[in-house]
Amino acid sequence: MSGKLIVISGPSGVGKSTVLKKVMDLTPNLYFSVSATTRPQRPGETDGVNYFFVSRERFQQMIAEEALLEYAEYVGNFYGTPEAPLNAALEAGKDILLDIEVQGALNVKRRRPDAILIFMLAPSFQDIENRLIGRGDTAPELVQSRLNRARWEYTQAPHYDYLVVNDDVEKAAQEIRSILTAEKCRTSERIHYLTLKEDL
Amino acid sequence: MSGKLIVISGPSGVGKSTVLKKVMDLTPNLYFSVSATTRPQRPGETDGVNYFFVSRERFQQMIAEEALLEYAEYVGNFYGTPEAPLNAALEAGKDILLDIEVQGALNVKRRRPDAILIFMLAPSFQDIENRLIGRGDTAPELVQSRLNRARWEYTQAPHYDYLVVNDDVEKAAQEIRSILTAEKCRTSERIHYLTLKEDL
Repeated sequence: MSGKLIVISGPSGVGKSTVLKKVMDLTPNLYFSVSATTRPQRPGETDGVNYFFVSRERFQQMIAEEALLEYAEYVGNFYGTPEAPLNAALEAGKDILLDIEVQGALNVKRRRPDAILIFMLAPSFQDIENRLIGRGDTAPELVQSRLNRARWEYTQAPHYDYLVVNDDVEKAAQEIRSILTAEKCRTSERIHYLTLKEDL
Repeated sequence: MSGKLIVISGPSGVGKSTVLKKVMDLTPNLYFSVSATTRPQRPGETDGVNYFFVSRERFQQMIAEEALLEYAEYVGNFYGTPEAPLNAALEAGKDILLDIEVQGALNVKRRRPDAILIFMLAPSFQDIENRLIGRGDTAPELVQSRLNRARWEYTQAPHYDYLVVNDDVEKAAQEIRSILTAEKCRTSERIHYLTLKEDL
């Protein structure tokens, strides 16, 4: 039985990383996908664990070879999802969680309609604004640009399969776990259980 | 927010009632739908709780008035699901569990495509056979007729949305609860969260 691919996006300020950490802690068979990036390795980061660190040339080659499920450029660096290790993990029955931004997520859905797309949002858009401003460590222009970005992301969220509202970390984490469980219960996933062969 | 209608079927011998009891115990907002029946009230049964006990004439009238979401005749008595109280409960935000046989379930799906259909099955068909024979209190012909019925039910199960395998009561109950949670997270159910109006 192959694993499920879950793709999660959510605007800056929604508290996604805290929820995902909880989900990972609670779900033994779920693994984070490791992205490839051209950005320099930082102290404490391990190649193949935090990222696959590659040169710009190698990344361009991966694009040309269609070795990436999706990729994006962000602040001058490339980030992408190598498809071969992802497929190997799924085929080994592991469930994979892909934490990527909206455009990448929608590209994944086009290429793999069986991917489960979850968009994480706040109880109201005002909460995102409050949270981004409340951090106090971000320049007003950056807050504004993140809000504009979040607004655009909300307009894309109807293309996702599920919406998880982060009004409570524990509850949001359980919702994501429930979605994974339910998707594995779909009739198409379990049709082999309907065989009567033992009885014929 | 209106509630969800979950319809569960499963062959005799699959252990459905034990699992459903566990589900009900664990899920505060989930209620059993009360069926109407023409069979006589038994000692200890309460009208409106176990069943709505009605005369054959009244039942025929309900059929004629299309007051039943589905109905079936079984061993000379009618059983059916009155639609008005079901709708009232759903509109009040209650989730409703409908434990009915396969033909009724498929009729519900035709009439209410938003109903969530779950078929409960055994790890293998042999398990059902073992369980029906193992009870030891059932005449061989009746065992055979239940097995034939179960075989037919398995052929209809691909029309259900989800398959829950009862290899473990606790696990099966959690799967049903997860399906309910996930269905409530569907984008179509939560699209109102995507409004940006607080911010405009």
